[in-house]
Amino acid sequence: MYGHGLFETMRLASGDIPLINYHLDRLLTGARKLTIPLDAGIVDDYISGFLADCNENGVVKLTVTAGAGQRGYRPSNTQRANIILQWFAELDPVAEIRLQVCAHRLPENPALAGIKHLNRLDQVLASLELEYERGISIRDGLLLDAKGNVIEALSSNIFCLVQGRWLTPDLACSGVAGVMRQFLIDEVIPAARSGSAPVDVTRIELTTLASADEIFICNAVRGITVVRALNDENGVELAAWTETPATGGVSRHLENRLPCFRA
Amino acid sequence: MYGHGLFETMRLASGDIPLINYHLDRLLTGARKLTIPLDAGIVDDYISGFLADCNENGVVKLTVTAGAGQRGYRPSNTQRANIILQWFAELDPVAEIRLQVCAHRLPENPALAGIKHLNRLDQVLASLELEYERGISIRDGLLLDAKGNVIEALSSNIFCLVQGRWLTPDLACSGVAGVMRQFLIDEVIPAARSGSAPVDVTRIELTTLASADEIFICNAVRGITVVRALNDENGVELAAWTETPATGGVSRHLENRLPCFRA
Repeated sequence: MYGHGLFETMRLASGDIPLINYHLDRLLTGARKLTIPLDAGIVDDYISGFLADCNENGVVKLTVTAGAGQRGYRPSNTQRANIILQWFAELDPVAEIRLQVCAHRLPENPALAGIKHLNRLDQVLASLELEYERGISIRDGLLLDAKGNVIEALSSNIFCLVQGRWLTPDLACSGVAGVMRQFLIDEVIPAARSGSAPVDVTRIELTTLASADEIFICNAVRGITVVRALNDENGVELAAWTETPATGGVSRHLENRLPCFRA
Repeated sequence: MYGHGLFETMRLASGDIPLINYHLDRLLTGARKLTIPLDAGIVDDYISGFLADCNENGVVKLTVTAGAGQRGYRPSNTQRANIILQWFAELDPVAEIRLQVCAHRLPENPALAGIKHLNRLDQVLASLELEYERGISIRDGLLLDAKGNVIEALSSNIFCLVQGRWLTPDLACSGVAGVMRQFLIDEVIPAARSGSAPVDVTRIELTTLASADEIFICNAVRGITVVRALNDENGVELAAWTETPATGGVSRHLENRLPCFRA
């Protein structure tokens, strides 16, 4: 009733869910923050049973809710979490995207930042700003916080290359800390750029993004998507990119580790 | 799935819902802000039908959701709003309450402030800070924003008397603009204090609240509840009140207008 729950949107490829441990880590962290009693073994059993019945390539959505309570905000002690698994067809590939700044700003909420909870009215409102053709967005939305800092795309995280170094926004106060974002930080970008600096998790202003050498967005379903252009809230182009060699290098390393993300 | 919806919690007394027009105004304002297509006539019809079947004194909860969409944040054009009506037994009267500051802070979100939407994780988390005895809170939670300004109680708005004038927090950036709060501002307090200044809707710091001459909280189910003491996050008492004559005056005027709120 009040969005007291969490979800994970996961790729299903060749009978496996890539990055499943990252997904489960984030889910359990979220459950702890929201005080939802969730047994990791039970979630594992549900997923195993689901994969035994359904292993066609696609997208698996795992939703956990705190369960049904009484009227009023406080969960009752007797509530039991609900675990819901859904399968969706594989998405059409998107090689590159135009990002458009959304006028809706993300609030700062340190207690909820990072986790993938079900209070997503900000994303619903921001998504309504985008133009759609035949139900498919021809742009992705870029979400800023109230101070104008870059946080994330609508359903993806963002990386930009500045002076030879990959930056990604600090998500301590807003945003969802994506599973693919973490895998890129932990393993892929260090491998792609051995010897160079690790990813810098930091505050990023819109002007920094507009003047970056390359930008990409990423999530656990689509992998890495090149950003070709950046528009402001009114559709005016702030920047565009034609060559993205460093992004290509990161993508190749990701594809080597997880072949399902090969274009 | 993402809390894209609204609710109203209403008193049902002697076959009628007091302040029904205030409830419907807020609901329709919220639906407009959340782009939920909602026909006022259909809502009226549902409520009339509900009251024809069920007119026992109690609490009626009206929930409106944006309806079922596809995966992803953007609502589809074909979604139809769901309207849900529930009846609950009348609440036990609470004559007075101790307020305790919650450590959880409300985020600033001007696009969502004021309306009674279903993204209520902040209230769920704050409610978990309070002590409960046999499922009943022995305190109510006081919610501040990140800057430390007073916003509201967990399910009520708040008024305080400072230098002979009633103040209530400005809810432009956080909080729910309660139906009872608006009725008190519009009609009850002006009548109770004819000739004196109207209610001052303003920024209120915790220190102002602690040094106020009187405090009460209010909502559309319980009416006015006297605040007898104010605690900080650690349970340390910041202030206490024994006499609350001005609150008594406002309560009497409310009871004259709406007898169901007589204690």
